[in-house]
Amino acid sequence: MDPERLKKQIDFIVEIDKLKHILRRTVLIDKSRRENDAEHSWHLAVMAILLKEYAAEDVDLEKVMKMVLVHDLVEIDAGDTFCYDAKANLDKRDRELCAADRLFAILPEDQAKELRRLWEEFEECTTPEARFAASLDRLQPFIHNVHTDGHTWKNGVTSDQVHARMAEIRDGAPELWEVVNNRIEDCIERGILTR
Amino acid sequence: MDPERLKKQIDFIVEIDKLKHILRRTVLIDKSRRENDAEHSWHLAVMAILLKEYAAEDVDLEKVMKMVLVHDLVEIDAGDTFCYDAKANLDKRDRELCAADRLFAILPEDQAKELRRLWEEFEECTTPEARFAASLDRLQPFIHNVHTDGHTWKNGVTSDQVHARMAEIRDGAPELWEVVNNRIEDCIERGILTR
Repeated sequence: MDPERLKKQIDFIVEIDKLKHILRRTVLIDKSRRENDAEHSWHLAVMAILLKEYAAEDVDLEKVMKMVLVHDLVEIDAGDTFCYDAKANLDKRDRELCAADRLFAILPEDQAKELRRLWEEFEECTTPEARFAASLDRLQPFIHNVHTDGHTWKNGVTSDQVHARMAEIRDGAPELWEVVNNRIEDCIERGILTR
Repeated sequence: MDPERLKKQIDFIVEIDKLKHILRRTVLIDKSRRENDAEHSWHLAVMAILLKEYAAEDVDLEKVMKMVLVHDLVEIDAGDTFCYDAKANLDKRDRELCAADRLFAILPEDQAKELRRLWEEFEECTTPEARFAASLDRLQPFIHNVHTDGHTWKNGVTSDQVHARMAEIRDGAPELWEVVNNRIEDCIERGILTR
């Protein structure tokens, strides 16, 4: 056992505790408070287990789980960027790249590379695993919105914007895309989403 | 696609949002508030990725991750039982069995069986994956205690009790057991744990 290596691993485990403080726009389903990134990442990983059969292509579940568990770590430094805030999204990539440089460097080199590669793969969204992970990342807040009277849609988000945001599901989990489309129509009829 | 099957899966995904409300005795490393079970489960799953090399035997990482992601779901009904509360631990198993009966039954039968089996395997702690998962489940709050001046040890928990609680690490990740032992001694010297 290499004590220096273990120290780096434990330092990283302590550092990422901060993800539990990064609040998202989504609220918990009982609407009592905003969700944080650690809770969101946990929810996605369980969804990966349960919804794997809907992935567009055969996916390596271990890789999908790893990807969703680490996909938001950069937000420890970069913060959560509201997906419908066009201005904040302009420098999102730069902020997240700086965060990745600092954070992953805490780990031993081989693990820094592995986690950074998983994050980059998620961001590039060109592999079956990344497309499925992105689908889950879109579907989870959608489910929360459907069950909280469209909580994050209240500030003037339109059904076209939600449609555009959900596009990853079409590629990553096409059967679920159809269901989401129907639910968007329901939400318009229920008056919790404007056309 | 079977709509009835998908409905059960989504119902379960909505139901387990409640895990984000189950508070543990452990506090976050900045001591601002108590940790919840969803955050704890996320932390364990990332630790599984990073600390796999210390597992006593070769483990199937996918299975370990699944196990730690679902190991606390029963606490949605049964609540978190403080590990050093002997009285509360007397009926823990009964409360958790009832919870498992209700919760997993929300899922399609094949997935209900899979998740229940994972939970039972974790509880029985007789496979290499379960022993490693249990080690992570002991190590994570230990790390939190070391970094929060022994927050959950303050109500008269002794070093012998912590030693006994950490025993799973000896079997599941022996190299880490040695490190934990040394840290227990440090904590006694720092005065945050009584002998």
